Amino acid sequence: MSAPVIDDLIRALGKLPGIGPRSARRLALHLLQNKESGMAPLMTQLERAHTHVKTCTECGNLDGADPCHICTSTRRNTKILCVVQSVGDVWAIERTRSYDGLYHVLGGVLSALDGVRPEDLRIPQLLSRVESLEATEVVLALSATVDGQTTAHYLADRLSGLGIKVSRLAHGVPIGGELDYLDDGTLVTALKSRTSYR
Amino acid sequence: MSAPVIDDLIRALGKLPGIGPRSARRLALHLLQNKESGMAPLMTQLERAHTHVKTCTECGNLDGADPCHICTSTRRNTKILCVVQSVGDVWAIERTRSYDGLYHVLGGVLSALDGVRPEDLRIPQLLSRVESLEATEVVLALSATVDGQTTAHYLADRLSGLGIKVSRLAHGVPIGGELDYLDDGTLVTALKSRTSYR
Repeated sequence: MSAPVIDDLIRALGKLPGIGPRSARRLALHLLQNKESGMAPLMTQLERAHTHVKTCTECGNLDGADPCHICTSTRRNTKILCVVQSVGDVWAIERTRSYDGLYHVLGGVLSALDGVRPEDLRIPQLLSRVESLEATEVVLALSATVDGQTTAHYLADRLSGLGIKVSRLAHGVPIGGELDYLDDGTLVTALKSRTSYR
Repeated sequence: MSAPVIDDLIRALGKLPGIGPRSARRLALHLLQNKESGMAPLMTQLERAHTHVKTCTECGNLDGADPCHICTSTRRNTKILCVVQSVGDVWAIERTRSYDGLYHVLGGVLSALDGVRPEDLRIPQLLSRVESLEATEVVLALSATVDGQTTAHYLADRLSGLGIKVSRLAHGVPIGGELDYLDDGTLVTALKSRTSYR
């Protein structure tokens, strides 16, 4: 079709998540037609990120430094640990600016189907961090999926003997959500966990 | 939110066409979590493409060589020139494997609104190539938009004195298309250009 060097670029772009063959061609064309204004800056940023971004050995977050800027921050409450599945969840919670504790990235959730066992996740590190930080609360901010909730139960069990508070995110009606379109499970949970109107 | 080096990468990815802030974050996360299997190969291909891909001075196509592999091919009919708006259209026609002539990439279409005038496109080059190649036919494969058709009319005018055949792509019902969903303009054209049933 086109030159091998272009085909290789299209193939590499097509391996990105959510990028099909059509989008990959479109991206390649855009990059090749904007070599200096689009391609060069992207290459620089990829280069920089590839060199500088590392996984924080404390919490598992991705950052330019290890330990990351959250773990080393002096304005963070080091007594609360928020357990999340992946770095994307750290970013999501940080965007809300409504949490000032530390994080612990598990790197996945337990899954019988995918063969993910407790020893495949950063669970021992979580337990030792709870101890070394003398944490008073662990927030289990895991997905409301079967695997996420299984993992939450497992962690709650493991943490139960340590005399700390273990909490989870509230389930309920999403802000802006219409009841009519909500699934029954969420509605039942929202009813059960109803709070008094102030 | 996250580290500046990660934010910069997300911003660079978000400038790609069709990639919003959410997709950019997803792509960045995927690349950072797959540094060796995803990020490194992409960087290599971008590097290679940035170095080797150039615009063919003959036809305006993008290729690893200049003149491009289509212009230098000995199996191509050099008497037919297909005029297209952009390199993406060359790729689209090449994928059909049903055209064996040469191409001429205009680099855009005439547009009063966007201020694109004839001298902004590769029109002089087209006229001199028609002469030097002693072409017998020019196929105007431009979009069926107002600007595309204006450009086609303009080119047909400019080429009319040269004693060569000037053709355009057929308009009609797309293969697999249902009449009911077709716009009236296309249906009118398809009716007017009806062909005898063999």
